[in-house]
Amino acid sequence: MIPTTASTTLRRNAIEPAIAELQALLGDRLSTAKAVREHHGTDVSYHTPYPPDAVAFARSTDDVAAIVKICAAHGVPVIPYGTGTSLEGHIGAVHGGVCIDLSQMNSVLRVNAEDMDVSVEAGVTRKQLNEHIRDTGLFFPIDPGADASLGGMAATRASGTNAVRYGTMRENVLALTVVMADGRVIRTARRARKSAAGYDLTRMFVGSEGTLGVITEVTLRLYGIPEAMSAAVCAFDTLDGAVNTVIQTIQSGIPVARMELLDDVQMDAVNRYSKLEYKVAPTLFFEFHGTERGVAEQAEMVQALAAENGGGDFRWATRPEERSKLWQARHDGYFAALALRPGCKGWATDVCVPISRLAECILETKKDLNASFVKAPIVGHVGDGNFHLSFLIDPNNPAEIEEAARLNERMVLRAIAMDGTCTGEHGVGWGKMNFLQAEHGEALSVMRQLKQALDPQGIMNPGKIVRI
Amino acid sequence: MIPTTASTTLRRNAIEPAIAELQALLGDRLSTAKAVREHHGTDVSYHTPYPPDAVAFARSTDDVAAIVKICAAHGVPVIPYGTGTSLEGHIGAVHGGVCIDLSQMNSVLRVNAEDMDVSVEAGVTRKQLNEHIRDTGLFFPIDPGADASLGGMAATRASGTNAVRYGTMRENVLALTVVMADGRVIRTARRARKSAAGYDLTRMFVGSEGTLGVITEVTLRLYGIPEAMSAAVCAFDTLDGAVNTVIQTIQSGIPVARMELLDDVQMDAVNRYSKLEYKVAPTLFFEFHGTERGVAEQAEMVQALAAENGGGDFRWATRPEERSKLWQARHDGYFAALALRPGCKGWATDVCVPISRLAECILETKKDLNASFVKAPIVGHVGDGNFHLSFLIDPNNPAEIEEAARLNERMVLRAIAMDGTCTGEHGVGWGKMNFLQAEHGEALSVMRQLKQALDPQGIMNPGKIVRI
Repeated sequence: MIPTTASTTLRRNAIEPAIAELQALLGDRLSTAKAVREHHGTDVSYHTPYPPDAVAFARSTDDVAAIVKICAAHGVPVIPYGTGTSLEGHIGAVHGGVCIDLSQMNSVLRVNAEDMDVSVEAGVTRKQLNEHIRDTGLFFPIDPGADASLGGMAATRASGTNAVRYGTMRENVLALTVVMADGRVIRTARRARKSAAGYDLTRMFVGSEGTLGVITEVTLRLYGIPEAMSAAVCAFDTLDGAVNTVIQTIQSGIPVARMELLDDVQMDAVNRYSKLEYKVAPTLFFEFHGTERGVAEQAEMVQALAAENGGGDFRWATRPEERSKLWQARHDGYFAALALRPGCKGWATDVCVPISRLAECILETKKDLNASFVKAPIVGHVGDGNFHLSFLIDPNNPAEIEEAARLNERMVLRAIAMDGTCTGEHGVGWGKMNFLQAEHGEALSVMRQLKQALDPQGIMNPGKIVRI
Repeated sequence: MIPTTASTTLRRNAIEPAIAELQALLGDRLSTAKAVREHHGTDVSYHTPYPPDAVAFARSTDDVAAIVKICAAHGVPVIPYGTGTSLEGHIGAVHGGVCIDLSQMNSVLRVNAEDMDVSVEAGVTRKQLNEHIRDTGLFFPIDPGADASLGGMAATRASGTNAVRYGTMRENVLALTVVMADGRVIRTARRARKSAAGYDLTRMFVGSEGTLGVITEVTLRLYGIPEAMSAAVCAFDTLDGAVNTVIQTIQSGIPVARMELLDDVQMDAVNRYSKLEYKVAPTLFFEFHGTERGVAEQAEMVQALAAENGGGDFRWATRPEERSKLWQARHDGYFAALALRPGCKGWATDVCVPISRLAECILETKKDLNASFVKAPIVGHVGDGNFHLSFLIDPNNPAEIEEAARLNERMVLRAIAMDGTCTGEHGVGWGKMNFLQAEHGEALSVMRQLKQALDPQGIMNPGKIVRI
């Protein structure tokens, strides 16, 4: 919960004239309706919603620049909004202010098929993009589960199931258009695949969660749709065996496209929710991309590793509709988990550790969970050392919230002690802010300097990532 | 040439007390000998050398922090030095100051074979690292030609021949230890493969050329040594045909490890210098990494593409010593070029464009060269859209320098007009500073803000990347 401060009160006095100016600029694209404000202060997490004072619907980078200039003149906070699918309170207007909804900026601007890149407005979602470019033989692989906006995915440094092969948003954003805190518009880079021409502003904004500027356009790498793809599911005797299969696959350099772990609790949930009959055991979901021969070779090598680690038979899905069904079950994992306890809320959290520590980190976390009255299935993008818990809690029961917070803190500090990070892909928002000092130490003071230099008034999504 | 300014004079009055304090700290590890200073102000380029006032030999991060603190107290510039192999005047003490030589910080700190990463002190060179880890079955692929220090490679965002497959330093640095302008020591990230926990300080320092802080330790990704490798050379009827083969290879998603272009002038130079008998024609050098079957499949696909584009037979090198010989010839390209005109200096420059514009950019540049009295062979890491010229000039002939500058500017502005960059991998130093406004526009003002925030006194390698 965020306390009200003197500066918050000051800002509240500034909001009314700012709203009046925004209304003159945007007409009915500026809303102060309660339902609209509440919708835009609520993400898909357990976090307390913080509705903004107003929601501005932008249609262009110029719109965003004009909105930010008005807010800057009045010292009013600006919170960018894509699809509202973030998980750590990123979009909550914790100090009030104006939410800029970018969902109407949904044009694919340029497809450069020869260069395998594309430029989109920030509100384009990943599914919309892949639909748009389907006939080019290219695709955009980053897949965080939700059909998030590409601007939001860049801002959160999203990754997901394909990251083990294709990287995260960090590796796949070529350039951004950003509106700075004073309304300046910059383009962070050009379309060349590499450059040594100055500071890497692209990577500075990727993962900055709207705290340094508003991302309005994104240029992304694309990949050729592989000639062949196949997917498989394999149950293991032990969690250890599953994780060791992952480690050995990575160490062998097998370019597996996806490698997802679901623990027994999660498999039970998936079976119930998606009406499937998988074995209730620690399970890996694989996907292989390449040429026909390449995919066959990868699959053969991974099957051999799995067999050595107590893995059972591979259940294959090669036809597109079978593969979609398999991955839909994986992507519905969160909702499947929620369905284990009707009426509950999910508290999703993630950490990421060096892969040599992954088994230990998961097993110790599992031990904590087994000793607790709060239930939380585990899933993981384990090829990266990244895994997730979803605590299934009654949000009106303080004892459950306290217990989830305790378990979460133990897991996060465990990951940090293993040279890992408090979040592999969900981001900081305000839910993970308290862990940054433990993770970054003195480096956090450099992050603070960056924030203060680029947003001296502290109006860009304040109360997220760094405390000023 | 850098003019003397009022602030330069001020700094000169501060240098003597700073040197006295450094001498007390370091004893004979602080040198003001003329030969030592001259050596440390000279890179391998055509740029005017600028010797520092003193050279401090650091043995630890603590040493570097102590040196920077003394320099900061006196407002004296600090210039980090690895192996002196940079190409755009990066190490020139254009405003005087203290050079920190990191070559004695040459320990490999930790090899994490299971996690496929390694931490080294900044002075470890890439060949030293690969020698050190040879028995682990792992290797570090980034290869800019020179046996540069890994700290210097990080600072310059180096890449080289393997980048088309393995990425550049941007993708392969996991974390850095950095001494800030006020002597604070930070670690930019942990060893987890991915993280969404705050601003990407790692990428901010990669490519910052010592202007934001001094890199003292580097944690790097490693890769498994491929089961099979093979290399081949293929001559083409036309430059166009060679470049189109490259474009089609990339677009087909063939994971070629190296794909280097040498034009006819460069091939002539290579033949003479390395006593080889390649055809004097536009030529591609390839390397394939993978399983036995994978390498065979890749080679087959690329040969088919080359044949369609006027490529001749592939000359294969599969045994390690043959491959080494082939790549040594490629790496000696710069020296081979210099040998075309005994006594000349090489002015090396590079640009990078989206691959769809590569043929056009090279051919227009070649037209300029054919119409000029200055000779310049072309080589390129063409899979990335990156190519290099080496103007072979008499440094005492102003007409030749002027002509090289004119040709260079035309090539750079051409690349920028094609949505490319003024340097793909050599960096900015002071040689490319004048092009950053054309390339980045308003974004350059954000780079300036960063520099001023993190180095308010302007002591960190001043006169490079951004003008204050």
